Amino acid sequence: MMESNKSSQAYPMKGGDGVSSYTNNSSYQKSLAEVVMSLIGEAIANKLDVQSFVGGHPFLIADLGCSIGPNTFIAVKNIINSVQLKYQTLKITPTPEFQVFFNDHASNDFNTLFKTLPSDKHYYAAGVPGSFYARLFPRSSFHLIYSSFALHWLSKVPGEVMERGSPAWNKGRVHYGGAEEEVVMAYKQQYERDMHGFLNARAEEVVCGGLVVVLVPGRPNEVPHSKCIGNVLFEILGCCLLEMAKEGKINEETVDHLNLPIYYASPQELEEIVNKNGYFTIDRMEGLPHIAEPETKHAATRLALGIRVGVEAIFKGHLEEETIDELFDSYSKKLEQVPSAYSSGGASIMFAVFRRNDKCY
Amino acid sequence: MMESNKSSQAYPMKGGDGVSSYTNNSSYQKSLAEVVMSLIGEAIANKLDVQSFVGGHPFLIADLGCSIGPNTFIAVKNIINSVQLKYQTLKITPTPEFQVFFNDHASNDFNTLFKTLPSDKHYYAAGVPGSFYARLFPRSSFHLIYSSFALHWLSKVPGEVMERGSPAWNKGRVHYGGAEEEVVMAYKQQYERDMHGFLNARAEEVVCGGLVVVLVPGRPNEVPHSKCIGNVLFEILGCCLLEMAKEGKINEETVDHLNLPIYYASPQELEEIVNKNGYFTIDRMEGLPHIAEPETKHAATRLALGIRVGVEAIFKGHLEEETIDELFDSYSKKLEQVPSAYSSGGASIMFAVFRRNDKCY
Repeated sequence: MMESNKSSQAYPMKGGDGVSSYTNNSSYQKSLAEVVMSLIGEAIANKLDVQSFVGGHPFLIADLGCSIGPNTFIAVKNIINSVQLKYQTLKITPTPEFQVFFNDHASNDFNTLFKTLPSDKHYYAAGVPGSFYARLFPRSSFHLIYSSFALHWLSKVPGEVMERGSPAWNKGRVHYGGAEEEVVMAYKQQYERDMHGFLNARAEEVVCGGLVVVLVPGRPNEVPHSKCIGNVLFEILGCCLLEMAKEGKINEETVDHLNLPIYYASPQELEEIVNKNGYFTIDRMEGLPHIAEPETKHAATRLALGIRVGVEAIFKGHLEEETIDELFDSYSKKLEQVPSAYSSGGASIMFAVFRRNDKCY
Repeated sequence: MMESNKSSQAYPMKGGDGVSSYTNNSSYQKSLAEVVMSLIGEAIANKLDVQSFVGGHPFLIADLGCSIGPNTFIAVKNIINSVQLKYQTLKITPTPEFQVFFNDHASNDFNTLFKTLPSDKHYYAAGVPGSFYARLFPRSSFHLIYSSFALHWLSKVPGEVMERGSPAWNKGRVHYGGAEEEVVMAYKQQYERDMHGFLNARAEEVVCGGLVVVLVPGRPNEVPHSKCIGNVLFEILGCCLLEMAKEGKINEETVDHLNLPIYYASPQELEEIVNKNGYFTIDRMEGLPHIAEPETKHAATRLALGIRVGVEAIFKGHLEEETIDELFDSYSKKLEQVPSAYSSGGASIMFAVFRRNDKCY
């Protein structure tokens, strides 16, 4: 029996190609992806042990949490170019065929993903539905697994924060930013459980010498949770929601029930988890600088929209469409007033390369 | 560069789960699938050369033209049970992990397919968009490829039948049933080109000793095209459409332009193509008996609906929704009057098992 994904919840990015869709609002990820591509190229050139791979077999790549493109297509193309260059440099012929597995939750819009696959792609494409916190692929079959802007999503909201009477009950907030220490700890422990699930699954799937490349928004080591930009942004969002509750527009209990399953880990936290897990060697781990938006009204609107795209699926389970519209209107106005919230530098994008070592699973 | 699928056209089965969806109208395929499963079990037990497969690798299965289930899930489950039984019988341990690739055109409703994957499945699932008349998978990677009720769909309508002035111009018909010999030949040649494309692609993808199992509606060797039940059914459909044109409800040119890319081959035709291709040995090829519907009004309605599900996507490119409704109403009435059309025995389901031989590609 496969490991069940039932316990994890799915929060797909908004599909289609409307104004507020992920396709039209992922430019921030894109520019960052361009910066990051040279780092991935370096990792492939220096750390990917292609000579240990069995000849004649296809080279298997996965993008975990791929959403619907086009960023995933750009990333995959760059990865393949780097791998081909490596084979050519080492004069290993023939270059393998490439098969790419695009993974996201079953609620992701795979129809759009498939219809927009590049016509000039140099690989065989497949879509794989399911949570990446469990097994997705057969044993020892993958050579490079990539995940961008996905691993900050927890598999679920930690149960304690929704339990009235628990010390970790997160009343009046939608996230752990600014919350009691118990709430932060509940989120942190969920993150640790999830990352162990992720690493154990990948340890089985990735061949010895294969790489897991991760790009994920996080928190610089020296920045406390309360100053981390992502947490501040969700704290403000929670305040907007609580104001609407106080104005009687929504039920206050809705705010109590609504929690975002997102955790911004520090490089140090991630490093400890990877080392404890033991199946991967950390080849690289660094924080990329936060690219601050210029402080304009437009920036606040874009930021609010960007966050809406990410969290809308969760909010829809609790709020009416019009309420969500109103919430993000007031959120956008609030962000204009506190621009330091999103240019404070209290943010970091973690770039990490883990190499599957020879520890048997 | 991948072989382009651009030249082939996609005619997805109707998605969703409404009254006229494929999910609710594929019972005929299902009962047949149950009959056929014992034949597949036999083929796996007697012909699948598992001992030649490399140990430790996953066992890869594909269903080409899978539509959206549930038939594909039932078939895959039965195939895996048979393969597991074979490994147990031969005392080969451990039994491999299974990975199943569900293939159909990119316009297929993969979102529904993914959301309805059995929760108790014993395999890793992937979806693969694209025409099975070209390459879909990496070289020498698959052990068993299955295709049910899909290979009678041509990659496209042969060009000549739509060319005014060509001897093969198929004026006033939507199919080759009852048409001039030139029209039949144009369809036959398209079928041959397509099957060579199919066999060549599979020859590269299937490991030596691996099987291609095909279930496809066809024409008994001794039955002429004009008596083949599928052709008769489409001839009647064409007549209904022509009547609507004569009543001024649609343009007569629409009937000329509308052609169904479907060909019912005989076992003899298929055998010749497979032998000429040379990469596969025919392990089994037989016609299964046509299961006649009882001659009731209900049967005619069901049959009309079943055909509508199959061809609606094509008709939608040429006709308004209401026109299609009217067409299938009159079609259903016409079928009631000529019940012999669908209980004549002039039909056959071809079941074939091809084994990849050791001829190098």
